[in-house]
Amino acid sequence: MAIQVSVCGPRDCTEDDRRNARELGRMLAERGAVVICGGYTGVMAAVAAGANAAGGTVVGILSRADREHINPDLTIVIPTGIGEARNNVIVNSGDAVIVVGGSWGTLSELALAMRRGRSPVVQLGGWRIQDRLGRPIPGILHADSPEHAIELTGLWR
Amino acid sequence: MAIQVSVCGPRDCTEDDRRNARELGRMLAERGAVVICGGYTGVMAAVAAGANAAGGTVVGILSRADREHINPDLTIVIPTGIGEARNNVIVNSGDAVIVVGGSWGTLSELALAMRRGRSPVVQLGGWRIQDRLGRPIPGILHADSPEHAIELTGLWR
Amino acid sequence: MAIQVSVCGPRDCTEDDRRNARELGRMLAERGAVVICGGYTGVMAAVAAGANAAGGTVVGILSRADREHINPDLTIVIPTGIGEARNNVIVNSGDAVIVVGGSWGTLSELALAMRRGRSPVVQLGGWRIQDRLGRPIPGILHADSPEHAIELTGLWR
Amino acid sequence: MAIQVSVCGPRDCTEDDRRNARELGRMLAERGAVVICGGYTGVMAAVAAGANAAGGTVVGILSRADREHINPDLTIVIPTGIGEARNNVIVNSGDAVIVVGGSWGTLSELALAMRRGRSPVVQLGGWRIQDRLGRPIPGILHADSPEHAIELTGLWR
Repeated sequence: MAIQVSVCGPRDCTEDDRRNARELGRMLAERGAVVICGGYTGVMAAVAAGANAAGGTVVGILSRADREHINPDLTIVIPTGIGEARNNVIVNSGDAVIVVGGSWGTLSELALAMRRGRSPVVQLGGWRIQDRLGRPIPGILHADSPEHAIELTGLWR
Repeated sequence: MAIQVSVCGPRDCTEDDRRNARELGRMLAERGAVVICGGYTGVMAAVAAGANAAGGTVVGILSRADREHINPDLTIVIPTGIGEARNNVIVNSGDAVIVVGGSWGTLSELALAMRRGRSPVVQLGGWRIQDRLGRPIPGILHADSPEHAIELTGLWR
Repeated sequence: MAIQVSVCGPRDCTEDDRRNARELGRMLAERGAVVICGGYTGVMAAVAAGANAAGGTVVGILSRADREHINPDLTIVIPTGIGEARNNVIVNSGDAVIVVGGSWGTLSELALAMRRGRSPVVQLGGWRIQDRLGRPIPGILHADSPEHAIELTGLWR
Repeated sequence: MAIQVSVCGPRDCTEDDRRNARELGRMLAERGAVVICGGYTGVMAAVAAGANAAGGTVVGILSRADREHINPDLTIVIPTGIGEARNNVIVNSGDAVIVVGGSWGTLSELALAMRRGRSPVVQLGGWRIQDRLGRPIPGILHADSPEHAIELTGLWR
């Protein structure tokens, strides 16, 4: 069974996020990992495109019960039909979870992954979480490049 | 149909969170609102206790498929059996969502409520979310007391 | 905490189903039970109307994430947003499950309730399930009237 | 994107079911289809073993949030964590749904697939569904062998 890495990020992402996601997809595919993503546009499409171009396998875990609006680079499509609750399925499916960029949906995935506490959670760009006194909440691994994100997962040490 | 208010917060909460949640439960019940919560301990138990003592109705939306570990102040029990995905159900069920205190599970509910974007989201205590430059992400209504939280929901103006 | 009884049945139901569901709703409300249903039309609307007219509490567990298309007799609305997966939530929420009439969605609820195996499952009208040799699969309690269905739940013995 | 076929069936299955499922797995893999299954034992393990032995791809859509109790022949593992609600995900993921053998869980999948109404639903062995007058409910395609089941999906005409 191959290593599975979930990559989460916004539909409406920055150009930086898109570049990072695409590069992550490529690097994960080259290492033989299956990429798990949300299956739609933005970061989801970029990581799928990067992985697909490198010959990798991409699983799209959709919120909808049908295949409307999916990106063209998915190998396997899982139309859960459970709406935003599918974020839990994405997060549960990764031996590591990498979050690229920031949005409320993305933050929910980051939080669910930390709540789960079973796999490394790596963040590349995006939002910051602090306690009431302005101190960062510990636990998230912060990467400054796709390469660094891959390294921080600890899956290829 | 009564107004429904979802109150989210950690199992392991501070004494302040507990007091705030209990007070919120009481105030919501006095206003005739149905309280929606996660049904277990910590903030969930405190808000249920406060509402129940004031004669209100409390719905516990459980992660488990059975009634193990529920708090004693629920009027109606919904054992979803869908695990942490039940956070979506809690958030979707509120005409407003009030978040008390901070934890990863709680943050996922805050993020899902903001992602949904249909109901006011009020935060009392707990964690802070910022962009990369340290600026707060706009949209969450910050309360400094249970009374203020009730007021910020805008449901009793 | 009140007894909770889940009542399942088709959107497109027969007049008999509708009459039976309405009567069941009334009888459950008179016994102080909370009625759990799917919240939309057909059997769901009839059981809600019967319970509501008798002063009972009705919880609608919706497939949608919003309140579109709900019937007018719900006391509490739970917009799960998890699509047909909400059938599991309905079934898990009943101290007994009563199924009125037949459809594929209704059959899924009957099967999930039997699969769960924790609460009595009573069928009033609707489809029949047999093994390959034409023998009925045991376990479902077959009622011939709303009164009989209530009796078969065993909750008011 | 490859054709995806969901194969459902009981944990506690007959020897016939097991043989049929294994043969189905082999035939689907030989045709290049991705097999979607529940990931555990019985029919789920048999179809996975058949597909895996023929070099195919098998996706296990688990009820649990972790990988406990999975069979050894899965290529990709999706630990949904949503309990029995994952039956909806299995059913939604198939360009066709093939049901082998009978149990309450399996019947729920058959019913959900018919309720969905988007993909052919083929039954091989297992239970029969009739209306109150003993007439079979139309719509399910009944196969008498794995080969026949494949043919009835209509995916390789």
